[in-house]
Amino acid sequence: MHRTKVRVVEDALDANNTIARANRADFDRHELTVVNLMSAPGAGKTTLLERTLADLPGGVRAGVLEGDVQGSLDADRLAGLHIPVTQLNTDSGFGGECHLDANMVRSALPALPLDELDLLVIENVGNLVCPAEFRVGEDVRMMVSSVTEGEDKPLKYPLMFRQCELVVINKVDLLEHLDFDLELFEHHLDAVNPGVPRMLVSARTGEGIGGLREWLLELRARTAAPA
Amino acid sequence: MHRTKVRVVEDALDANNTIARANRADFDRHELTVVNLMSAPGAGKTTLLERTLADLPGGVRAGVLEGDVQGSLDADRLAGLHIPVTQLNTDSGFGGECHLDANMVRSALPALPLDELDLLVIENVGNLVCPAEFRVGEDVRMMVSSVTEGEDKPLKYPLMFRQCELVVINKVDLLEHLDFDLELFEHHLDAVNPGVPRMLVSARTGEGIGGLREWLLELRARTAAPA
Repeated sequence: MHRTKVRVVEDALDANNTIARANRADFDRHELTVVNLMSAPGAGKTTLLERTLADLPGGVRAGVLEGDVQGSLDADRLAGLHIPVTQLNTDSGFGGECHLDANMVRSALPALPLDELDLLVIENVGNLVCPAEFRVGEDVRMMVSSVTEGEDKPLKYPLMFRQCELVVINKVDLLEHLDFDLELFEHHLDAVNPGVPRMLVSARTGEGIGGLREWLLELRARTAAPA
Repeated sequence: MHRTKVRVVEDALDANNTIARANRADFDRHELTVVNLMSAPGAGKTTLLERTLADLPGGVRAGVLEGDVQGSLDADRLAGLHIPVTQLNTDSGFGGECHLDANMVRSALPALPLDELDLLVIENVGNLVCPAEFRVGEDVRMMVSSVTEGEDKPLKYPLMFRQCELVVINKVDLLEHLDFDLELFEHHLDAVNPGVPRMLVSARTGEGIGGLREWLLELRARTAAPA
């Protein structure tokens, strides 16, 4: 029984990876750098994008694929950036899927102006479990962890923290009002993903946002460079 | 394809409901009041239980079934309450399930001292999507929404907010440091679940905890009363 379940899950993940590779081939053909952005609900992904993606230097053209169970609240917020934003809802089944997978992203590609973009950020559904299990064809996975969520999150959701190439620690403007122990959080982070790059930011005040923009531009330069 | 998927999901939910009814029958036989406690990761479920369940008046004996993808951090924290706490991990499959279902709860029942309890709180996996889809045999569903998560959450995760009999609005001690618009949050809450009871608390400072304890005691009195 247990073995059967694992097999079914593995088959589903194999199928997902096949479609993720097809997405990747399309992104490569359009010389597109793709970030899969994940976090718990309310960690500040959308505010972070509002702060980070406006007027990127060096002529880097950014766009967003906005994943939500339903509605277009975040896409509407990002409309003010005057960059291409496409909404992808997961609620066609019962109750809505709690994550994006490669096939959902694939279904949204025709709605994206891939030729007009250099950097595509895919904002995943707010969830620390399932989004980490599904590659969608991205170059890197970035996650946002808010200091209001507590120090224990890397230990409780290890797959998510382990799969990421960058952990953005958000809402640091609130640190002085919280009991959050940053050193302990980083200790837990290193326990599941030793030495993973991390960045302290406040999407609200703008603190640290410059560093994140630089990181994205370096990622773009690195992934766009000829082999 | 779409139709088939919906059918499969419906079958799975039917199977879940059958097991949830079996759990309910067991709870009834032991005259047990059961709360399914849900929230996003880091909203403060465990701290709330630490504050609320210690020394309940009226001889009400509480216990906790602690759901996590892996680890026993929360159960360890609750050990200080000196009440029965049982850990239930969802990581036996790949990556871990992002919610509890009736069968997982059923598998944990033999480890619970049902005869020695009046009130069982089942702390679900931190997630605003899938836990709302699976009844586990509970009397009521209670959710915690932290003011640090933003006003838009009822609109983005409507099933979760719609299914609840009580919404605990936590971390109100931080309100003065946030841009959170409480009136707007309640407006959104009423849009998806008109008039649902709500309670402002701070699990950190203890504000509002007395009211939550009273609510639980009244729930116990109501569900334990002869028909």
